[in-house]
Amino acid sequence: MALNPPLNRKLRMGLVGGGPGSLIGPVHGIAAEFEHRCTMVAGAFSSNPERSRQAAPSYGVDESRTYGSYEALLDGESRLPEGERIDFLSIATPNHTHFEIAKAAVEAGFNVVCDKPLTLDLAEAEALLETVENSDVVFALTHNYTGYPMIRQAREMIQAGEFGKINATRCQYIQGWLADTSEDDNGTLAAWRTDPAKSGAAGTFGDIATHAFQLGRYVTGALPESVSCHLKTFVPGRQLDDYGTAVIRYQEGALGIVTASQVTHGRENDLELEVDGTLGSLKWRQESPNELVVRRKGQPHQIYTRSPGTGTMTPLAEASSRLPAGHPEGFYEAFANLYNAVFDDIARRASGSPFERRDTVYPNVYDGVEGMMFIEQCVASSESDAAWMPLSYPAARQ
Amino acid sequence: MALNPPLNRKLRMGLVGGGPGSLIGPVHGIAAEFEHRCTMVAGAFSSNPERSRQAAPSYGVDESRTYGSYEALLDGESRLPEGERIDFLSIATPNHTHFEIAKAAVEAGFNVVCDKPLTLDLAEAEALLETVENSDVVFALTHNYTGYPMIRQAREMIQAGEFGKINATRCQYIQGWLADTSEDDNGTLAAWRTDPAKSGAAGTFGDIATHAFQLGRYVTGALPESVSCHLKTFVPGRQLDDYGTAVIRYQEGALGIVTASQVTHGRENDLELEVDGTLGSLKWRQESPNELVVRRKGQPHQIYTRSPGTGTMTPLAEASSRLPAGHPEGFYEAFANLYNAVFDDIARRASGSPFERRDTVYPNVYDGVEGMMFIEQCVASSESDAAWMPLSYPAARQ
Amino acid sequence: MALNPPLNRKLRMGLVGGGPGSLIGPVHGIAAEFEHRCTMVAGAFSSNPERSRQAAPSYGVDESRTYGSYEALLDGESRLPEGERIDFLSIATPNHTHFEIAKAAVEAGFNVVCDKPLTLDLAEAEALLETVENSDVVFALTHNYTGYPMIRQAREMIQAGEFGKINATRCQYIQGWLADTSEDDNGTLAAWRTDPAKSGAAGTFGDIATHAFQLGRYVTGALPESVSCHLKTFVPGRQLDDYGTAVIRYQEGALGIVTASQVTHGRENDLELEVDGTLGSLKWRQESPNELVVRRKGQPHQIYTRSPGTGTMTPLAEASSRLPAGHPEGFYEAFANLYNAVFDDIARRASGSPFERRDTVYPNVYDGVEGMMFIEQCVASSESDAAWMPLSYPAARQ
Amino acid sequence: MALNPPLNRKLRMGLVGGGPGSLIGPVHGIAAEFEHRCTMVAGAFSSNPERSRQAAPSYGVDESRTYGSYEALLDGESRLPEGERIDFLSIATPNHTHFEIAKAAVEAGFNVVCDKPLTLDLAEAEALLETVENSDVVFALTHNYTGYPMIRQAREMIQAGEFGKINATRCQYIQGWLADTSEDDNGTLAAWRTDPAKSGAAGTFGDIATHAFQLGRYVTGALPESVSCHLKTFVPGRQLDDYGTAVIRYQEGALGIVTASQVTHGRENDLELEVDGTLGSLKWRQESPNELVVRRKGQPHQIYTRSPGTGTMTPLAEASSRLPAGHPEGFYEAFANLYNAVFDDIARRASGSPFERRDTVYPNVYDGVEGMMFIEQCVASSESDAAWMPLSYPAARQ
Repeated sequence: MALNPPLNRKLRMGLVGGGPGSLIGPVHGIAAEFEHRCTMVAGAFSSNPERSRQAAPSYGVDESRTYGSYEALLDGESRLPEGERIDFLSIATPNHTHFEIAKAAVEAGFNVVCDKPLTLDLAEAEALLETVENSDVVFALTHNYTGYPMIRQAREMIQAGEFGKINATRCQYIQGWLADTSEDDNGTLAAWRTDPAKSGAAGTFGDIATHAFQLGRYVTGALPESVSCHLKTFVPGRQLDDYGTAVIRYQEGALGIVTASQVTHGRENDLELEVDGTLGSLKWRQESPNELVVRRKGQPHQIYTRSPGTGTMTPLAEASSRLPAGHPEGFYEAFANLYNAVFDDIARRASGSPFERRDTVYPNVYDGVEGMMFIEQCVASSESDAAWMPLSYPAARQ
Repeated sequence: MALNPPLNRKLRMGLVGGGPGSLIGPVHGIAAEFEHRCTMVAGAFSSNPERSRQAAPSYGVDESRTYGSYEALLDGESRLPEGERIDFLSIATPNHTHFEIAKAAVEAGFNVVCDKPLTLDLAEAEALLETVENSDVVFALTHNYTGYPMIRQAREMIQAGEFGKINATRCQYIQGWLADTSEDDNGTLAAWRTDPAKSGAAGTFGDIATHAFQLGRYVTGALPESVSCHLKTFVPGRQLDDYGTAVIRYQEGALGIVTASQVTHGRENDLELEVDGTLGSLKWRQESPNELVVRRKGQPHQIYTRSPGTGTMTPLAEASSRLPAGHPEGFYEAFANLYNAVFDDIARRASGSPFERRDTVYPNVYDGVEGMMFIEQCVASSESDAAWMPLSYPAARQ
Repeated sequence: MALNPPLNRKLRMGLVGGGPGSLIGPVHGIAAEFEHRCTMVAGAFSSNPERSRQAAPSYGVDESRTYGSYEALLDGESRLPEGERIDFLSIATPNHTHFEIAKAAVEAGFNVVCDKPLTLDLAEAEALLETVENSDVVFALTHNYTGYPMIRQAREMIQAGEFGKINATRCQYIQGWLADTSEDDNGTLAAWRTDPAKSGAAGTFGDIATHAFQLGRYVTGALPESVSCHLKTFVPGRQLDDYGTAVIRYQEGALGIVTASQVTHGRENDLELEVDGTLGSLKWRQESPNELVVRRKGQPHQIYTRSPGTGTMTPLAEASSRLPAGHPEGFYEAFANLYNAVFDDIARRASGSPFERRDTVYPNVYDGVEGMMFIEQCVASSESDAAWMPLSYPAARQ
Repeated sequence: MALNPPLNRKLRMGLVGGGPGSLIGPVHGIAAEFEHRCTMVAGAFSSNPERSRQAAPSYGVDESRTYGSYEALLDGESRLPEGERIDFLSIATPNHTHFEIAKAAVEAGFNVVCDKPLTLDLAEAEALLETVENSDVVFALTHNYTGYPMIRQAREMIQAGEFGKINATRCQYIQGWLADTSEDDNGTLAAWRTDPAKSGAAGTFGDIATHAFQLGRYVTGALPESVSCHLKTFVPGRQLDDYGTAVIRYQEGALGIVTASQVTHGRENDLELEVDGTLGSLKWRQESPNELVVRRKGQPHQIYTRSPGTGTMTPLAEASSRLPAGHPEGFYEAFANLYNAVFDDIARRASGSPFERRDTVYPNVYDGVEGMMFIEQCVASSESDAAWMPLSYPAARQ
């Protein structure tokens, strides 16, 4: 039971963002340390040094390695001996800051785990991709829903041909927390998400439709060709979309639909994926993540569950499970699965072993660029009366 | 407990279609007679006289009033004394015959209950509308899902303003029975549905997307403005669409989505409606028809059930319920609710009372024309790269 | 498509009970006439002649055959020519009147469909059994839940050995409509059910636990040996139990549990059956009656649905289905299935063909006696500190 | 954001058990360190020193504090300076060893977190209680299901009187993993659980029915009076029960049912609790832990969800939640909630503050003694033909 073989030691983590009031910062901390494979040792939790210091104890980070800016962190850590400095940097800041932080970290040689969306716009994303390709770092993007075992099972079953040719995907991501508030009274989480300067060209579509789009891509491997999109802003005074639907044509003839809402009263985090193939269909809901419903004409409906050791799971899905069937694993565990796959590659890099950069288990910079293209083309389409916009990205994973 | 007040007698029903192997013919018979308010007394169950005679006993129709064609039926019944002849004619034949049968019946002065879609194309539909408007008959269209109590509850709650302004509808109608068959080997039900000469310009979209479109219209009252549609034919060799999605812009700014499939393996009859309003959201599934999920931000999720006598139901929904909560009512009962509302108007007409013709409880000829416009514009849009097509019909109900 | 072969005619039905305000009377009328195999032609809807006359029109029964008492009905019908008189009598009256009505009907040679429980007590039940055995009539008892297709599927799968040896059954029947009312203010339905003189020795246990017990018996065929029971009366002032649980030892070693409540707030008609066998387990809920969940270790969970024509249904289950999968059939349809099986035997008797009397598709007088024994032994056990009471009935079906 | 105020430091954890192949050992490690409030610094992971050393790296424990026995651990840690030695010891070993380890740890002054059941038998449990009462340590028992936020919400709502007087509880705990195996071929987890010398007098009832019993006690506070129990062993050759049901009479008149199975094919970890009160009823299922269904007569069904910040949660439930609604928290998070409450008391003790010992948020030694009494009386009842056995424990929490 070596840790991060062949390294046989815990990895050292740095975090940018995650200051007081942050939702996703603590998620990174919990998920990364979940199975004791890493320890957070450094952080720039806020661009306000005082607030950064306040946050440090809850992450267990020592004051000596609590920084007041990401620049200071990168500088400070780079000066430490190789055996002490961080192995990777996680970025949990608002969208508009991802680019500069990630670029600097990669250029300093640090592996990066970056929140989605990758950057503020596609131009930044393509520039970052170039930076990553010119480096040898591990670069992951936290489309965390790919970490769910049953999503990985769906992917592996499709890859094995169990559903035949893919005809259609239907993906809905429905929330309601922005249903009736203007941004003024809704606190930190809402504030930057609905500000174009910080969030990017899209609101709901940048925040959650990208997850939905990417999930369909990850599970089916189908390559998109073009998109037609309708964005709506239903809450008066809001600057960005809070609802929308996109129709996607895939290169092999499949038809995809992505609908996202943050204004549907009372809906929580209802990401749902349906895939139709010529040999079967599947359905998965993030709010019941341990189940995957599989149907084939002429057979009873089948519910596959996360149930390691029973013989019903595919290899990666099984390896992504900890507890026996019926012991619910949830959001943190999926996030930890993403981190674990990243750690495998970080250990490979650290030990000089080769590692895959495009078709990785975890979402990466290529997925990130594709996601930014999706956002931009959706916005462009919506502004052109839902005209078709190209959505083919040459370097995309299959 | 008078029957069909003020008539105080059972109504007399005639049926065209419903011969051996028919699915929907027997449904009409069961639903219409459900609560003993009518008796089927005449039928032209097939255009083959021998087959028509074979079917008669299972409907309890006497040989003397079993006809070999709809013309013979209308002729024969018209000759009978008023106190014996049928009160209404139900039409359960393939789409391409609806027009001529319905037109003739209306012109002969008979009330009509017609299967959807109304006709083979929009031109026919508009001609039929004119015929109906020039008559004084009761004319109903069997968009039977409007008969479900919880659909009626949703409509009444929305009409009462409980959901505020409607922002969005999402309606999916997913089946799988045409997933892997070509028409040759799939028997009667599939055969005419996939033949353009009998089904009309659309396959799945004519067969079931019209239900979905109409259901959203019925529940919300929102008036459509334009539609963009993508139709697909996934099964090789099929002549008509078996999958598609339509985006609908409503006049007041709402956005609607209708997706329909008949090729999703193992899915049964999964018609699902979601409505977002500024004050709440709702969700209903035809496969669990006795439940209506209502959500409002800051409150627990609420499940309204068909539960007469408990104080939670709206008036029409309560009146459309028979059994106490938890005693499942299903497809037949909803269909019977539609018939019961038609019977109320037939009795009104027969007794010289006025009755509503446009905003009826049951779907009617106006809904039928609108449905045909929906089909034609969806096909036209799909053939024009999903261009926007007008979908505003001046005489539509609100 | 002959009707009731070989008779080739509709059957003639008489009804006792079902007057104004009755729940179950109209259910009998709708279910029996569901598929046009019979017509109600006579009724004694109330022991109050005026109320009996009031009810007649809603059943479509002519005034000339509307009687003021069951005695008058039996007398009047017996005097009619064989080709006019009723073929069978349905009994939908309070429990304490079942015995005398059923006995008189059987002795007059009429087939009988009797509401459950069979009689007021076991002594009456055994006397009635003797009467039936000395006759040649068809006698059915409306444990209507046995009419659900998926219950019949469960039974057939168990009979075919697909679940191996039966180890355990768990059956809950949970309602809430008597949660907070005393009998005075709850109207007709509650009044007689909570009056020992009319309901019998048990309240909730006589009303619904008998259904649960019988359902387990019907599905598994396991023969009971003894019972230990705890009854409770939670609503102050109530005379009979409104809650209870019984543990049942079966002769082959299986253990059964039956729990029933009518005081669980908000629960509707939640009859749930679970069966454990050595090769698999199953679960069925009356509120989702078209599904049967089957599980086997090492396999995905399977949901069998009512889906005729797809190859997944057992013969009797398939024959008990009308509509394609996903078109919900409910309470009435199950009740109609029970009637249809009775009609088959009535037609056999009328045409001189032999018919099974004990192991019938529908519950019968033997099941009724066993049910009365269950009630009496549960009450006796409960009064003796839950002591074990014998529950083996020699003539029980297997 | 101080850590473990007023201590302002991470706590130091020791673990006994959790060696290679252990399920529950890693759960303790993950749950305890979940939010960085403690670090595991010492362990005796196996009584085989070599295996103990193998396990250490996966817990992040240094070789210098990896011990070959619990005695060595207690001895070694006691010799360390107060500022280095462990703050508490978690015990994750088979049942028969709990007593000696816990007793020694308490006597050495260490706080203890012990797996359930508390000991091998009631005599040991009472002896351990005396030891704990004579000490000043914090002592917790890992009935981990009490850590779920919605269980805590149920408890707080009942304590606030929202359900009125409690009439009944129904608790099922159904698994299937022992359905078809004899102990020989089922590996470590099954082996000791089915060996009376290691598991105690009961198999399934000791392993999981105790959870179910305790959960009802925790949520309702109702005090038991007596129990009647039926245990079964369905798998041939097994020495202990693998199925059973217990009926419990509570002192205030409520009736409880606990049914547990480990032989129900395909069922996973289906712990379900229903509570009936005079003002409402509730239902919760461990496999959908983020939901609590609440019903009141005359109102729509309500589903409360784990949804911090929305105003629908009770205080402790809200404080036990991390993520927004719809982001599933599961088994680990509930386990971590239990640990967090223990840490609060450990910090209080360490800083000399008073802390509650009986009515704690987490299950404790009093609950443990009551659980052992439950097991022993169930076994005794089952051996006496389900006779009633007293189940009142004077020191039980309310």
